Amino acid sequence: MLFMVEMDVNIPLGFDADEAARLKAAEKARFQELQAAGTWRHIWRVVGRYANVSIFDVADNAALHDLLTTLPLFPFMTMRVTALCRHPSSAHDDDR
Amino acid sequence: MLFMVEMDVNIPLGFDADEAARLKAAEKARFQELQAAGTWRHIWRVVGRYANVSIFDVADNAALHDLLTTLPLFPFMTMRVTALCRHPSSAHDDDR
Amino acid sequence: MLFMVEMDVNIPLGFDADEAARLKAAEKARFQELQAAGTWRHIWRVVGRYANVSIFDVADNAALHDLLTTLPLFPFMTMRVTALCRHPSSAHDDDR
Amino acid sequence: MLFMVEMDVNIPLGFDADEAARLKAAEKARFQELQAAGTWRHIWRVVGRYANVSIFDVADNAALHDLLTTLPLFPFMTMRVTALCRHPSSAHDDDR
Amino acid sequence: MLFMVEMDVNIPLGFDADEAARLKAAEKARFQELQAAGTWRHIWRVVGRYANVSIFDVADNAALHDLLTTLPLFPFMTMRVTALCRHPSSAHDDDR
Amino acid sequence: MLFMVEMDVNIPLGFDADEAARLKAAEKARFQELQAAGTWRHIWRVVGRYANVSIFDVADNAALHDLLTTLPLFPFMTMRVTALCRHPSSAHDDDR
Amino acid sequence: MLFMVEMDVNIPLGFDADEAARLKAAEKARFQELQAAGTWRHIWRVVGRYANVSIFDVADNAALHDLLTTLPLFPFMTMRVTALCRHPSSAHDDDR
Amino acid sequence: MLFMVEMDVNIPLGFDADEAARLKAAEKARFQELQAAGTWRHIWRVVGRYANVSIFDVADNAALHDLLTTLPLFPFMTMRVTALCRHPSSAHDDDR
Amino acid sequence: MLFMVEMDVNIPLGFDADEAARLKAAEKARFQELQAAGTWRHIWRVVGRYANVSIFDVADNAALHDLLTTLPLFPFMTMRVTALCRHPSSAHDDDR
Amino acid sequence: MLFMVEMDVNIPLGFDADEAARLKAAEKARFQELQAAGTWRHIWRVVGRYANVSIFDVADNAALHDLLTTLPLFPFMTMRVTALCRHPSSAHDDDR
Repeated sequence: MLFMVEMDVNIPLGFDADEAARLKAAEKARFQELQAAGTWRHIWRVVGRYANVSIFDVADNAALHDLLTTLPLFPFMTMRVTALCRHPSSAHDDDR
Repeated sequence: MLFMVEMDVNIPLGFDADEAARLKAAEKARFQELQAAGTWRHIWRVVGRYANVSIFDVADNAALHDLLTTLPLFPFMTMRVTALCRHPSSAHDDDR
Repeated sequence: MLFMVEMDVNIPLGFDADEAARLKAAEKARFQELQAAGTWRHIWRVVGRYANVSIFDVADNAALHDLLTTLPLFPFMTMRVTALCRHPSSAHDDDR
Repeated sequence: MLFMVEMDVNIPLGFDADEAARLKAAEKARFQELQAAGTWRHIWRVVGRYANVSIFDVADNAALHDLLTTLPLFPFMTMRVTALCRHPSSAHDDDR
Repeated sequence: MLFMVEMDVNIPLGFDADEAARLKAAEKARFQELQAAGTWRHIWRVVGRYANVSIFDVADNAALHDLLTTLPLFPFMTMRVTALCRHPSSAHDDDR
Repeated sequence: MLFMVEMDVNIPLGFDADEAARLKAAEKARFQELQAAGTWRHIWRVVGRYANVSIFDVADNAALHDLLTTLPLFPFMTMRVTALCRHPSSAHDDDR
Repeated sequence: MLFMVEMDVNIPLGFDADEAARLKAAEKARFQELQAAGTWRHIWRVVGRYANVSIFDVADNAALHDLLTTLPLFPFMTMRVTALCRHPSSAHDDDR
Repeated sequence: MLFMVEMDVNIPLGFDADEAARLKAAEKARFQELQAAGTWRHIWRVVGRYANVSIFDVADNAALHDLLTTLPLFPFMTMRVTALCRHPSSAHDDDR
Repeated sequence: MLFMVEMDVNIPLGFDADEAARLKAAEKARFQELQAAGTWRHIWRVVGRYANVSIFDVADNAALHDLLTTLPLFPFMTMRVTALCRHPSSAHDDDR
Repeated sequence: MLFMVEMDVNIPLGFDADEAARLKAAEKARFQELQAAGTWRHIWRVVGRYANVSIFDVADNAALHDLLTTLPLFPFMTMRVTALCRHPSSAHDDDR
């Protein structure tokens, strides 16, 4: 089941640089784990902002919530979740 | 080069049903042509609305503008365009 | 899987009264069918507006989309969909 | 008498972790007390956010105000209150 | 139980003048009936707009909904409803 | 001359509790003085928020500005001022 | 007593040109009458829009409401009213 | 003196096609006259919308207002005007 | 050339009182200098807010920018600038 | 390929003045390098705000993202990016 999640990251000025680096590394590791599992289907940077547009493929709403709220950078992120579904015109298997 | 385009379709109540059907068929044909060409990379329905989220892969801004403004349903659509780029964490070739 | 859907209904001034009555009766019949099936879990009127707040329990996003977009009053409605999930504090079976 | 209350929780970065844990435990205890009493009729998490959608059944506006403003996490919450009432189509006793 | 209701009236250009006059007279008669009953506690014009701010004293949410949605000008009005309650500092009986 | 003023109060987390108590007591005293004088005609709490809706009866705009900006809690409040006037349908002397 | 009123004029496409010309002439005559009386203290065009910013000097709120709502173009205008008062720093008699 | 003007064009569905073509030709001719005169310094299409971003170099505000409000497509356009000035870092004569 | 500038002032809670007093005195002195020069044509307080509406008469955009950004309270102000011009109906020399 | 980027700069009150001066000098140096390269095609100040409107000419979206997010003042800026393309009416080579 697919969802678009738009994430804006805002780490405050003056936040400890080492802690930020540690959190970003943990975020990246977690992202790659979820990407490898096929759960975090797509991610793209939004030009000019510390933000991304992502597509998730999850079993249900609860799985998405658990996944998003345990991301290492979650406390620094604003998220906008949009439920998606397959478009009837698409001939593309991957757009399920 | 990737762009997210969010399209809302609004065909007025009372619009001629045959003309609407003709335009939708033309839109679908054009979509599938662009999908086959790899230009209209992804399309998903937004749940509960006559709307979609799409990812386009185009040569440049002008190509995207020409493509979008000649869609058969363009006069009925509101579009929001967001420039995207590859995310450094992605190991997924398709997210270029 | 639960979703909140906020629906605003706007039937234009001067719309044919018989057709409106027919659509409202069809909407009510469809609602009661879905309520009996346990799919349309809750519905409440919003005070002072021709609008409701509803809770749906569906198999997946596509099921919700199909259900909402085939409602008899869908062409007259604006919808806002919010994905929900069980709250960890709840001891109430029905809030799954 | 029913009300929908949408609550967003925002505990600032750097807020004392023990105090936050204490407040959350107190909030949960108070919630369960009100749930058992039938006052806090429903609660659902909003996917991807530290937020909930709740339905309250109270004697009057003043009872709701007293209840909401004495929640342990009230100083950290933004609330949106919407007055609801029974929908005429509903055959469901619980949607009073 | 008190509610503030902000009402904006928008009668379209070209709407039949006699029908508009008839509806306004019916609205005024209904208002005065509710004012005499103590239900429509206060009404004030908003300067420069065809709009009012009103205070209602009703038994419950359902009574307010029935009252508002059967006003003769309801199909031409946009309403914003805010639940109010007595302020602890007030020594004024009428602000209950 | 009547004005509606909607006041939201926001005292920051961590603000000195004694100072806050002192300011609230001063605010209450000032309110009651103005209520007794007939200047602060009405005040109601907004359910679920630290906010009120008030009706002022003042000689002119300058009197209202001086009154509002010297309230003890003014530095913590956001205000929205709306000019009102008597509604022609009202038979209620107090709605002048 | 001073008020700023921001007025946007929107005469629909296809509105009868003679009637529009007649209304504009009536609006201009009324404006000049009020300008000569010192009531419509200032008027300026907003660059690039069919809109103006005006300053009114009126006896009270009711006088402003009566004046604005009887303007010949009132049915075509959206108005935003802001209560003003003398600035303590001003040495300019006209800014009362 | 420089201004940015963002123009959105909205020609209603069903507007006479010949008249629209005539207005667009007149708009283009007027644009090119003003471009040749150095007044309409820049124009760019906004991707995916019937809209443009333009830079004007005019003698004063009144000249800009006269120019904009006499454009053949003005009745179909929404404009947002932003006053600009030379940036101190620029070494580019044309950015005056 | 005329501009409306709407200024909101926000001096943070806890900002040094002496420094604030010094900045306000400097702001007032600068204002009176510009008022005497005819540049700061009008200023009015906005009722209930630490804000003003001002009319400036300047040689060009750059002069306005330099003037506004060097005001002593500029770092504490949010500004909204609107380009104005003479209204054709005005018989008032001062509204140039 | 052209993009409009609107940048608002917000350096917090109390930020170290030397560090701010250093960052601004670095920003200016970087700007002039990009201006000389023809990448940062235009920049204009927005009157009354610490903000600019800029036009960039870049190879692709990724080049723009890298450029914007490595600006020395990036952590202090809010950016709005709009994809542009050549307007068909323009006879001006520079508006490509």
